[in-house]
Amino acid sequence: MAKVVIDIAMSLDGYVAGPHDTPEHGLGEHGGGRIMGWDHTERHKVITADNVGAMISGRRTYDLTNGWNGTHDLGNGIPVFVLTESAPAEVPAGDTPFTFVTDGIESAVTQAKAAAGSKLVYVIGGASVIQQLLNAGLADELRVHIAPVFVGNGIPLFKDIDYQISMAQTEVRDYAGVTHITYRLQ
Amino acid sequence: MAKVVIDIAMSLDGYVAGPHDTPEHGLGEHGGGRIMGWDHTERHKVITADNVGAMISGRRTYDLTNGWNGTHDLGNGIPVFVLTESAPAEVPAGDTPFTFVTDGIESAVTQAKAAAGSKLVYVIGGASVIQQLLNAGLADELRVHIAPVFVGNGIPLFKDIDYQISMAQTEVRDYAGVTHITYRLQ
Repeated sequence: MAKVVIDIAMSLDGYVAGPHDTPEHGLGEHGGGRIMGWDHTERHKVITADNVGAMISGRRTYDLTNGWNGTHDLGNGIPVFVLTESAPAEVPAGDTPFTFVTDGIESAVTQAKAAAGSKLVYVIGGASVIQQLLNAGLADELRVHIAPVFVGNGIPLFKDIDYQISMAQTEVRDYAGVTHITYRLQ
Repeated sequence: MAKVVIDIAMSLDGYVAGPHDTPEHGLGEHGGGRIMGWDHTERHKVITADNVGAMISGRRTYDLTNGWNGTHDLGNGIPVFVLTESAPAEVPAGDTPFTFVTDGIESAVTQAKAAAGSKLVYVIGGASVIQQLLNAGLADELRVHIAPVFVGNGIPLFKDIDYQISMAQTEVRDYAGVTHITYRLQ
């Protein structure tokens, strides 16, 4: 069955975005762009157009990127399941087929796994979706890219995470001035 | 001149201790002890009785450990400069000579550097002292040991850190299931 992989970058002080993230500045102020501003070679060893069969995103991430303007970086029409309270009136034209999931994170995971087949389900974010997945025990792997920057405040990646979650560090990479860590969950 | 090295462990969700830290449970509830509960070989490559010439600690860390009961793990009477508002009435008997610094973090660093000579000034913590050092630009190196655990809440290591601090990742180690990262500051 498809493995659910969270892949996310954070600042050393634990934020996925600096303060005041907007569509114009998706990673916020305080130089939030630096959180993702590095060579993604190491990240793209796992997260590739070939490996990923479906994606899960939160609604805010979808809105901030305008649905990746219809085409995610990974390209090739990989289905995206967007967790939301209600579907938007309009959806960007493009290659990326969106499904808006209004009945909770578990349903989003079930649908994404079915769409992914034997490939990965890549959890894009945002932080809220990741927190829900972790606390519900629905993710298999957590990949964190720690950028050597502080942003001071903004959107924290980990908030009220269940301390009883069992995890093991399975890989650590030093690449492009960033630390890339993989954890096996459960 | 002595180099000021911050050396500290945190949970993946960024805490140096879980909730409700007390002298009985110095690293708090929610399994806070796991934050430091690993093989310290990698850490003790830098932080050793030979390398360290002086230590800086916050008052709360001092109180929680009862002044390391008079003898720090590193032993051999290394002077400890404790940042505080007022000196305690009694000091534990033992090998470790304490100086209580009541005129601020800059004074603590100046005194510790003078005592350390050509050796390191090791900043023990807690989080508040580390935040003050970072924001004042008084530390040369930051070593963070990221334990593969969540504690959910407690005492955050990084809080309101100046986003303009310049830093570079200089070493990453995978040892004993923990990620050890060194950053050069400034």
